[in-house]
Amino acid sequence: MLPRGRPRALGAAALLLLLLLLIGFFLLGGDPECERLEPDGRAGDLGCPRCPLTPRVPSDGRLRGASALHGDPLAGHWDHNRSACDPWPQLPPKCELLHVAIVCAGHNSSREVITLVKSLLFYRKNPLHLHLVTDAVARNILETLFRTWMVPALGVSFYHADQLKPQISWIPNKHYSGLYGLMKLVLPGILPPGLARVIVLDTDVTFASDIAELWALFAHFSDKQVIGLVENQSDWYLGNLWKNHRPWPALGRGFNTGVILLWLDRLRQVGWEQMWKLTAQRELLTLAATSLADQDIFNAVIKEHPELVQPLPCVWNVQLSDHTRAEHCYSEAADLKVIHWNSPKKVRVKNKHAGFFRNFYLTFLGYDGNLLRRELFGCPSQTLPEAEQLQRALAQLDEEDACFEFRQQQLTVHRVHITFLPHKPPPPRPHDITLVAQLSMDRLQMLEALCRHWPGPMSLALYLTDAEAQQFLHFVEASPVLSARQDVAYHVVYREGPLYPVNQLRNVALAQALTPYVFLSDIDFLPAYSLYDYLRASIEQLELGSRRKAALVVPAFETLRYRFTFPSSKAELLALLDSGSLYAFRYHEWPQGHAPTDYARWREAQAPYRVQWAADYEPYVVVPRDCPRYDPRFVGFGWNKVAHIVELDAQEFELLVLPEAFTIHLPHAPSLDISRFRSSSTYRDCLQALKEEFHQDLSRRYGAAALKYLTALQQPRSPA
Amino acid sequence: MLPRGRPRALGAAALLLLLLLLIGFFLLGGDPECERLEPDGRAGDLGCPRCPLTPRVPSDGRLRGASALHGDPLAGHWDHNRSACDPWPQLPPKCELLHVAIVCAGHNSSREVITLVKSLLFYRKNPLHLHLVTDAVARNILETLFRTWMVPALGVSFYHADQLKPQISWIPNKHYSGLYGLMKLVLPGILPPGLARVIVLDTDVTFASDIAELWALFAHFSDKQVIGLVENQSDWYLGNLWKNHRPWPALGRGFNTGVILLWLDRLRQVGWEQMWKLTAQRELLTLAATSLADQDIFNAVIKEHPELVQPLPCVWNVQLSDHTRAEHCYSEAADLKVIHWNSPKKVRVKNKHAGFFRNFYLTFLGYDGNLLRRELFGCPSQTLPEAEQLQRALAQLDEEDACFEFRQQQLTVHRVHITFLPHKPPPPRPHDITLVAQLSMDRLQMLEALCRHWPGPMSLALYLTDAEAQQFLHFVEASPVLSARQDVAYHVVYREGPLYPVNQLRNVALAQALTPYVFLSDIDFLPAYSLYDYLRASIEQLELGSRRKAALVVPAFETLRYRFTFPSSKAELLALLDSGSLYAFRYHEWPQGHAPTDYARWREAQAPYRVQWAADYEPYVVVPRDCPRYDPRFVGFGWNKVAHIVELDAQEFELLVLPEAFTIHLPHAPSLDISRFRSSSTYRDCLQALKEEFHQDLSRRYGAAALKYLTALQQPRSPA
Repeated sequence: MLPRGRPRALGAAALLLLLLLLIGFFLLGGDPECERLEPDGRAGDLGCPRCPLTPRVPSDGRLRGASALHGDPLAGHWDHNRSACDPWPQLPPKCELLHVAIVCAGHNSSREVITLVKSLLFYRKNPLHLHLVTDAVARNILETLFRTWMVPALGVSFYHADQLKPQISWIPNKHYSGLYGLMKLVLPGILPPGLARVIVLDTDVTFASDIAELWALFAHFSDKQVIGLVENQSDWYLGNLWKNHRPWPALGRGFNTGVILLWLDRLRQVGWEQMWKLTAQRELLTLAATSLADQDIFNAVIKEHPELVQPLPCVWNVQLSDHTRAEHCYSEAADLKVIHWNSPKKVRVKNKHAGFFRNFYLTFLGYDGNLLRRELFGCPSQTLPEAEQLQRALAQLDEEDACFEFRQQQLTVHRVHITFLPHKPPPPRPHDITLVAQLSMDRLQMLEALCRHWPGPMSLALYLTDAEAQQFLHFVEASPVLSARQDVAYHVVYREGPLYPVNQLRNVALAQALTPYVFLSDIDFLPAYSLYDYLRASIEQLELGSRRKAALVVPAFETLRYRFTFPSSKAELLALLDSGSLYAFRYHEWPQGHAPTDYARWREAQAPYRVQWAADYEPYVVVPRDCPRYDPRFVGFGWNKVAHIVELDAQEFELLVLPEAFTIHLPHAPSLDISRFRSSSTYRDCLQALKEEFHQDLSRRYGAAALKYLTALQQPRSPA
Repeated sequence: MLPRGRPRALGAAALLLLLLLLIGFFLLGGDPECERLEPDGRAGDLGCPRCPLTPRVPSDGRLRGASALHGDPLAGHWDHNRSACDPWPQLPPKCELLHVAIVCAGHNSSREVITLVKSLLFYRKNPLHLHLVTDAVARNILETLFRTWMVPALGVSFYHADQLKPQISWIPNKHYSGLYGLMKLVLPGILPPGLARVIVLDTDVTFASDIAELWALFAHFSDKQVIGLVENQSDWYLGNLWKNHRPWPALGRGFNTGVILLWLDRLRQVGWEQMWKLTAQRELLTLAATSLADQDIFNAVIKEHPELVQPLPCVWNVQLSDHTRAEHCYSEAADLKVIHWNSPKKVRVKNKHAGFFRNFYLTFLGYDGNLLRRELFGCPSQTLPEAEQLQRALAQLDEEDACFEFRQQQLTVHRVHITFLPHKPPPPRPHDITLVAQLSMDRLQMLEALCRHWPGPMSLALYLTDAEAQQFLHFVEASPVLSARQDVAYHVVYREGPLYPVNQLRNVALAQALTPYVFLSDIDFLPAYSLYDYLRASIEQLELGSRRKAALVVPAFETLRYRFTFPSSKAELLALLDSGSLYAFRYHEWPQGHAPTDYARWREAQAPYRVQWAADYEPYVVVPRDCPRYDPRFVGFGWNKVAHIVELDAQEFELLVLPEAFTIHLPHAPSLDISRFRSSSTYRDCLQALKEEFHQDLSRRYGAAALKYLTALQQPRSPA
């Protein structure tokens, strides 16, 4: 098709071709990676954001565009006039793994980071790997959480924050984040050497977009750039906030380090560790301490080496501090990407648009994390082995089975957030006892009374939705009684499925008890005021630890009266019994549950006495922490404690009734969970089936010794 | 710079130039609208998705790209090979108003459409206008909902579905959507003539992306195209599903009409109304009825006029029907845009990935709609006048005022979803009575008992979060007692703020009562089994309607016992009173609340007797529906009913106690709302301040006649 001609004409054509190719390159960005970005030959959709054109990269290696603050002299911005036609940045390939690093310490930051992670997962379309630098508390919480969350295509690695402290503890820091605030500086040294790039986030940011769009900005780094940052949206570093205000050095308004793109291998190449240490040491000759932790040092290094920084569009770190200039950013932007609650007041910051931004935060705060257990279609092997095993087991269930819901509920792995609120473990004491119980939202009002009756440690499992967990948090904060107690550990088990997983909840609370003994109670019971002291004294006197394998029985009573004066002694309790104000627990409906405690003998008893197991016995007991777990097959209501006592008996625990111990059940409306199922005949049939399976397992484990339980079961009797 | 040469060389160069320009045009799309799309000169951000290049539009007017089903012969698809570099489609300008039309009828569809709208609002960044074609039920619900929702930058217009029926009722239709399923056909005729383009949605779709991206596809229509549709993801129209399966004619697999882009002015120009009617009439000569409602007719028209349709990428209508081929679409796509629950089983459809998609749906089902009341920054005048007035009033409150929370709560406009569940209004009867009450989640278990005690109509306001509203729905579905009742109207008032808006709730329930009389009760009370009949008889006998302006007092009692046998007659009740199992309501803590009822006289009474108002009197009464409303300033607990009785007395209602009427309060644990505030002294102080303001208003309205209430207030007395 090309017209033939002389060499000169060809030369002209060739030149023209070159020129046009250059123009084409200019217009298209000439991105040589465009093909590489879809290595699987996958067809994009109409919106195909995966591989459009890159914006022009001018010769100074700086991007020019539209998203910086207006009227701002600071370099590294985007040209307003051409921005109307700036194309979408190239997104990383569909299944490329993106890496995120976060420093997180303590109970409150652990809650905060989960909200951040929910927002990340909601919008993400790529596999993610979280690199979490944590103290022991956060690690304990987050390891359990991510193990039970089982989010496909989400990897998590932990790094010991304690081990990093020597590298930064020499830096005096006035910022509220403390030593942890400085740890971002040492990330290039501790993250795996093979990891080339990472996005570093503060725990107080919320995503409002796909993190892959942020990752895509790495493609705009020049060869020399190693750190991507958004400009500060306050005047702090301008040094004019008050008289003699002397901030650390920074380029103009400086940069905020709540969101950082770190090009790790380049940082290692340029000797980052030496670089920031030298700068920090030099500045600390004249400045007493960092005011804004790592951010002061990052800015000082950048002031000295401006070629290292790639300024990022302001929407990737909209900073809602008290004196923010963020409005200059968000009022112009079509789309907000990341919100940063960088005031010490966090989401309670006063700002005329704070309500607007708070809605994004609240969205993820209350968002049901179970809904984020969704696969990424078209990427290989995202499912964790445990999750796969679970899915296989669930797939094998017969949906037509009348007990399908029971079996499904038993297999459900609930997300667990242990020590949801700040908690101080009790000091180690040889006879100490933790009260263990479980509850849902409709029993929160029991907590204050329980705290008054039990002054010792408690481990409570709460079955809540994500939104309810926030209501619970506010409930505790509003209660002086509850706020004052640091020895009550609250473990949130997130709701999933139609049946109340009572024994799974008990096991969560039991596993988190830290004292040598546990009092296995229920939330509707209030123990005698003296019970905590009396039980510890009894354990010591009975020499339980060394001598005897025993379960101490705490006799249970009930009142049917809504208004009720709690007896302050056994004598008062006996008087109430005699006057008909109190009864032995469930004396009318289910006497066999507590009959073996032998209330008549208890009235007179002066010393602990041994009782024998009998069918359907379900006393409240004190046992060593390493006692058998509850059988998680019992979900909903019925037989869940009975099976546990069978297990104790099978393991030859003595049952010793304590003469001065008592606990009283308070009346309450039936819970929704109970009223939904009690009336159903299917429910009773399934409970029967579960009991039979339990006994089969028992025979397998204890052989002929388990025969007595089966015999007892076969006596005709109404179910619990 | 251009090398000079001979004409021939120039000719060669010119040809080459032309060729390269063509290539450039091909690659860039050569969109002349790129500048126009940012008319405000606004600077985009780095991601600037507002104005990239359009994909190539080949000469046949069909887009070619990657998102159609694989290996599919149907035309109008996207070229797989080039798709990796397809750019992002141009989005409409930031503040352009986008129009959406939805047909919605009945209670269940009204709930469904709200979930759709929540997903729309979550992702949208443009002002939206909803055009809702509704029956009377849906209009009633949705008008109230949108009025109280007060979402900025959201307009809503209603169109009477009933008036459209004659235009389509001649078409026999076998689809479950009935006549409403056909109404999309007539939209071009009923939407405002000035409206050029609209997106039409089924109620059973969920957005997973910004609708502006869908709107942007209008830009790809050729001059002749008038309808944008996604291909069907089932084999229905191939006509091979069973022997003698004879679907309506369609192009290949046909198109699905759950998501439609309608270019309205062009449709009017091409004579759409005549066109579809002729086609439908002709096809109905040989086909008995439509099977898939409007979709059959749309497809038949398109088969005849293929030039009218612009095929859309499959991700904009991922169809989760039973035999869906949707996996071909979503397993390849990077990003899903719209999920369509087009099986009659809706979200309960069996599909191996249904769980994945259901999570998107559940996200918005439980999403707190209050969080969607967020402005669009940078677009002018989005706020509704009512919302602006409210914001001004809220801004005038003093945050330092100890009663700030009370005043804020009083001003709060709660989102209200009336008749949340299917409801049949009671037939008009002259003396009929609706029981009016309000509750929150912790009192759901009262509903069944209440239904047993009150066989008449009820109007109940429920104070719930969006997620709790779904739990409530499941609770009712699982209860045979509740499911059987169509005369109980449930009105959901969505939670917002820290205090329980008790009187606002009562007013919502009261406003929705449809009988001439109402029994103003509380949820913890169970009326005598005979009360409904007895009250109606009493109203008739007392000739209340014509003769007397009266409030009939239903004496209130309470039991403190958890287990309790309800008295079946006044005689039984008196026996229980004598035995100490029952008391006059709050006899011990707050005797003045009911003392004027004169229980001693009631014991003996054979006929209704008149009693006088006294301070703090708060009986449960039967009054005409148009009685005074409750004073919404009383939020939280205390004095809320007292003020209402004052109002009745001020308006000269006689207080008549009925000799055979009674209602009994059941014990319950204190609600979280009550326990949080009862103990606070601030709470008591604020309640006192509210009372004083109430009396000032009373004096203003009733003058000297109100003096007695003020005098009564000033007697020293403990607050309720």
